[in-house]
Amino acid sequence: MANEKSSSDKKARETAWSIGARTLPLPSGASQDLREAVGDGLQPAERRKELESVPQSEAEWLAFVAAADEATAQEVRNAVDQLPVAVERDEIDGVDVYHVVPDEIDPEYEDHLFVHVHGGGYVLHGGYACVGEAVAIALGTNMRALSIDYRMPPRHPYPAAVDDVMTVYRHLLTQRSVGSMAMGGTSAGGGITLSAVQKLIELGVEVPGALFIGTPGSDLSGTGDSFRTNEDIDRNIPTYDGIIEACVRLYAGDLDLVDPRISPLYGDFDNFPATLLVTGTRDLFLSNTVRTHIKLRQAGAEADLLVYEGMSHADYLREATSPESQHLADELKSFFAQHLRRSSRPAPPSMPRMDSARWT
Amino acid sequence: MANEKSSSDKKARETAWSIGARTLPLPSGASQDLREAVGDGLQPAERRKELESVPQSEAEWLAFVAAADEATAQEVRNAVDQLPVAVERDEIDGVDVYHVVPDEIDPEYEDHLFVHVHGGGYVLHGGYACVGEAVAIALGTNMRALSIDYRMPPRHPYPAAVDDVMTVYRHLLTQRSVGSMAMGGTSAGGGITLSAVQKLIELGVEVPGALFIGTPGSDLSGTGDSFRTNEDIDRNIPTYDGIIEACVRLYAGDLDLVDPRISPLYGDFDNFPATLLVTGTRDLFLSNTVRTHIKLRQAGAEADLLVYEGMSHADYLREATSPESQHLADELKSFFAQHLRRSSRPAPPSMPRMDSARWT
Repeated sequence: MANEKSSSDKKARETAWSIGARTLPLPSGASQDLREAVGDGLQPAERRKELESVPQSEAEWLAFVAAADEATAQEVRNAVDQLPVAVERDEIDGVDVYHVVPDEIDPEYEDHLFVHVHGGGYVLHGGYACVGEAVAIALGTNMRALSIDYRMPPRHPYPAAVDDVMTVYRHLLTQRSVGSMAMGGTSAGGGITLSAVQKLIELGVEVPGALFIGTPGSDLSGTGDSFRTNEDIDRNIPTYDGIIEACVRLYAGDLDLVDPRISPLYGDFDNFPATLLVTGTRDLFLSNTVRTHIKLRQAGAEADLLVYEGMSHADYLREATSPESQHLADELKSFFAQHLRRSSRPAPPSMPRMDSARWT
Repeated sequence: MANEKSSSDKKARETAWSIGARTLPLPSGASQDLREAVGDGLQPAERRKELESVPQSEAEWLAFVAAADEATAQEVRNAVDQLPVAVERDEIDGVDVYHVVPDEIDPEYEDHLFVHVHGGGYVLHGGYACVGEAVAIALGTNMRALSIDYRMPPRHPYPAAVDDVMTVYRHLLTQRSVGSMAMGGTSAGGGITLSAVQKLIELGVEVPGALFIGTPGSDLSGTGDSFRTNEDIDRNIPTYDGIIEACVRLYAGDLDLVDPRISPLYGDFDNFPATLLVTGTRDLFLSNTVRTHIKLRQAGAEADLLVYEGMSHADYLREATSPESQHLADELKSFFAQHLRRSSRPAPPSMPRMDSARWT
């Protein structure tokens, strides 16, 4: 068998396809918002240049991270200032977290909580920069969120991030019913969520009632087909080479990139909770997402997949007011409502039920 | 707004991306079966040549169709001879059909029927060639199937195919309960199924209990992004240009290619039954499939999407013994079991229930 495989791999190299140069128009089936965002972007060759520069020392990494996170945090702060949401820093068992409370909470789900694991390539979006997606989801679903500012490389490789997520989740479990919590995030956040849930199951800890897994870093080895088929087609990460792969290697530390502890696609999906996965046709992580979806279904989990037309990696966060992002918020709200258990406590009678039309 | 759009379209042309030539390896995350099938195939440039030759007269079309269908029919006959299934020709209200009865029928679902609408680019797979997919689904789900040998171009453009499907379905409705039937097919079969169901809803006729829509011809205008992003990447139909577009134009007759009657993506999806959609990351019809999925969900339908890693257009039919195809059969069986109504008649007591373990 080993020989057979190796001979097949040899053949694979020989039969790689030569695909000619081409011109790629805007995705005419996507929303006007998304098309314009694609049209405003750089050409693939220019975008690649942005990803080529990789810090060469811990000091360079720290400077790179500090500058990037400060810029992101400022953007997020400016947005939060305009939005009907309150964000407050806290600490849970030594881990930094942010409470994200929308002004309007659906009374039916007022005990529910979205536990947010941010993205940022396992290295970026620390500090206040972590809350952007949590704010979008809290506002889109009218639910409270808690964003975990987990430790990251270069100082804290795996398992620091997963440990921090588990620490916070286990603390929350002492305060609330397990079925009242959803967990998830995008990209690195999706990958770390999958790893944390695999670890919870391994330890026999009750898992959240539902997961949101957006275009996840589920296979850090870059094995998925879309790492090649969507190369230069994804407007946000045109290639895995360069800074992305360097970030991933920092997170992996001494582990091989196909180790199931950091590439949860190769881990166990038995007993996973209901999971909503999201990606796009232009996403470099399309394969990461669909492979995770099939694995979940093979393991018997309830797993739904959404693939948006013309969408690149995590575009639903970048174009947060696009029709695609609004549809995703509706899907998330409905998915959480379906899978999270309602509190046994009735809603206060003075507050109107948002879905009262259904009951009359 | 008109000016704005036109200026945006102008910009779209100017900002089309230039993507360089590349080498595409085999999809290493797909099954060994699928990888080998990709590896055994021709290079994109060679595959394109096969699609360039287009018949130029009705006589040439008829000769092309006859030769292709005879070859396909012989392949299907050879397969059926080896398989535990009986195929019998019949006629329903003037439409040719084939009954497909597997030797082993799940007693729990012995009243269920899969109404099959074959693919073949709206022009091919007439006659016995139509039953291939029906046989695969009947065997994979242990359900009876009925394959409709609908009329096709060059002699019978739209609406002949949709009319024939409706004729057969309405006849079946007089014989059996509506919830006992699923309907569907792949490629042109998926597109024609969507059109037929839209027409049934428009006429107020009860729809099937569940649909299977495989990589459908839902947008014949070639608007979807994957018509470009997966050009030369799909191993089965590397491009929409040439024979595929010529077939589609024959089917459309005098209609514009974006007319909702032939491109059901632009039609109405209200009141659609539960639908399982399937595609792959390399599929030229990836966008057709995911756009249809989102439209169905936006209209409130229960719609599940499966995207297989490294899979080109309709590969699950071409590599019918691959793990991907076996997984799809399991999904279809479970989807039909969930959405089709069981007969009120109890299963004969002498026959073991296949899922008895669930009840003990």
